[in-house]
Amino acid sequence: MSKSISELQKIYSDALSELKLPTVTPNLYDPVTYLLGLGGKRIRPVLVLAGCNMYGEELDQAVGMAHAVEYFHNFSLMHDDIMDKADLRRGKETVHKKYDINTAILSGDVMLIKAYEFIEQYPAELQVALFKIFNQTSVKICEGQQLDIDFETRDDVTIVEYIKMISNKTAVLLGAALRFGGMIGGASHSDAEHLYAFGKNIGIAFQVQDDILDVFASTLDSGKIEGGDILQKKKTYLYLKSLELLGEEDSKRLAFLYSDQNEIQGDDLVKEGRALMENCHVKVYAQELKENYQQLAFSHLQSVSVAEDKKEPLKTFAQALLNRAN
Amino acid sequence: MSKSISELQKIYSDALSELKLPTVTPNLYDPVTYLLGLGGKRIRPVLVLAGCNMYGEELDQAVGMAHAVEYFHNFSLMHDDIMDKADLRRGKETVHKKYDINTAILSGDVMLIKAYEFIEQYPAELQVALFKIFNQTSVKICEGQQLDIDFETRDDVTIVEYIKMISNKTAVLLGAALRFGGMIGGASHSDAEHLYAFGKNIGIAFQVQDDILDVFASTLDSGKIEGGDILQKKKTYLYLKSLELLGEEDSKRLAFLYSDQNEIQGDDLVKEGRALMENCHVKVYAQELKENYQQLAFSHLQSVSVAEDKKEPLKTFAQALLNRAN
Repeated sequence: MSKSISELQKIYSDALSELKLPTVTPNLYDPVTYLLGLGGKRIRPVLVLAGCNMYGEELDQAVGMAHAVEYFHNFSLMHDDIMDKADLRRGKETVHKKYDINTAILSGDVMLIKAYEFIEQYPAELQVALFKIFNQTSVKICEGQQLDIDFETRDDVTIVEYIKMISNKTAVLLGAALRFGGMIGGASHSDAEHLYAFGKNIGIAFQVQDDILDVFASTLDSGKIEGGDILQKKKTYLYLKSLELLGEEDSKRLAFLYSDQNEIQGDDLVKEGRALMENCHVKVYAQELKENYQQLAFSHLQSVSVAEDKKEPLKTFAQALLNRAN
Repeated sequence: MSKSISELQKIYSDALSELKLPTVTPNLYDPVTYLLGLGGKRIRPVLVLAGCNMYGEELDQAVGMAHAVEYFHNFSLMHDDIMDKADLRRGKETVHKKYDINTAILSGDVMLIKAYEFIEQYPAELQVALFKIFNQTSVKICEGQQLDIDFETRDDVTIVEYIKMISNKTAVLLGAALRFGGMIGGASHSDAEHLYAFGKNIGIAFQVQDDILDVFASTLDSGKIEGGDILQKKKTYLYLKSLELLGEEDSKRLAFLYSDQNEIQGDDLVKEGRALMENCHVKVYAQELKENYQQLAFSHLQSVSVAEDKKEPLKTFAQALLNRAN
């Protein structure tokens, strides 16, 4: 019988807590332990286990690849947090804040290499297949991060480019995680590709939802003004689509608010940006976009040739991810 | 017939110039092209080709692994230069100086991943063997860099630890490069290990020589006062051995010069540090240490089971590296 997502989470967090890092050069490895210890939902490694579980009950063999994706993900967080000058991660100090930037660079590097090491344990033919997808995915994630950085200083970002960016930066790792699990479980090439497409499109839908919540959720739920994306002038789908939807004058105003010339900051910026986005009902369009990617994802899941009950945990997981309210 | 080192350098630089990086996200890949374009002796990729050339004339197959080690080496330079706050590399601006720190972090990351991608081209059994050694070596290099950083703030560094640090940070990649070449050429496991040990011990000897030249060469050759290692208070073999050799008072004085309490800087620091090191004749000990590692290296080369004439290029190369005067 297929395991539930919470069972898989338990299996993974137990496996993670049993991992031993080298005891030499603790200044190199302590930050790795620290960041991994901050917790999180372990979405990516759980997807590896879930992908494998669609093809069999034996999940031990998938744990290595689950570690590989979790290590990779945390390596990218460690370095992205430096680039974003982020002070907090899951409510605790980021690595470069708690230690220093050099530490976060070097511990991140070793974490990436350790991610690769987890791939060594697989039989040669499977290993080279996993390695190839791992490389492809990793390159895309770097390119996605670069696009995100590029967007900060560009005023001609298109919606297509934005989708490409979030697909690379966030979504492909979800797809790859599921695909790894499937490959380890013995999925056909076709199944592996459908699993990848399911995960990737769920990832895009998830990110669009995240963008919606960032602008609209906090006011509804708590009356708080947050709107981090507007504060940081992130050129999300909501912003880009609003530019299209708004009349000429309002569209120019929104573009001005996001420009370097604008001196309005903080709550005033969030209030005005949000009001413009509300006026053009961009949320409706964003919801539709999200649902399109969600449907695309589920059509790929449908094409995976395993019994329907084997797909239930993934469906439940995806629904839970996509229906959260904040 | 075995190719000479300069022939191998030509083969490698031609191969490198034909490499095409992705044209998407130029902000990510331009710094990679820039750093690789700064030149250098290409010691590591040439060692890959030389290792392969001991076993056959067909070197095309070794080019991929040559790229892997050259990419890895340059990734580590890109990140180390950030950590060391170095402004110049081969007489030109370092990546973080020419672009910015975030660029040097992310372009370095993708360069590491691209290094791994070059391993994909090998047949499965060989690939997994190369991959495993590549991971081991990469981890050691990170640990070596961490030790180097740790030494800056430690006052109890031992000579054994120093050798361990330079072995990991610098020498193992030379050993691994030769080993990769041998493996690709079809070396036995025993030969591959001897090639590794040859390269590693040459690397240690090379670093000790570098330390000697840093303190003593510039005065002899040009009368210039440089002595970057003393300026940066690097705890090299010369410093650590001098502490042992000097009388109690002088030894305390040298330790004081390298401490945070010392306010003597610049040329005055170099002059006094160098004088103390000269007084205890540490150079003689360092030369002996270098020669010991050199002999150890050559004894491993002797154990490699190929005809003696196949070893000539490596011998010449090692001699050239170890006999440079500045």
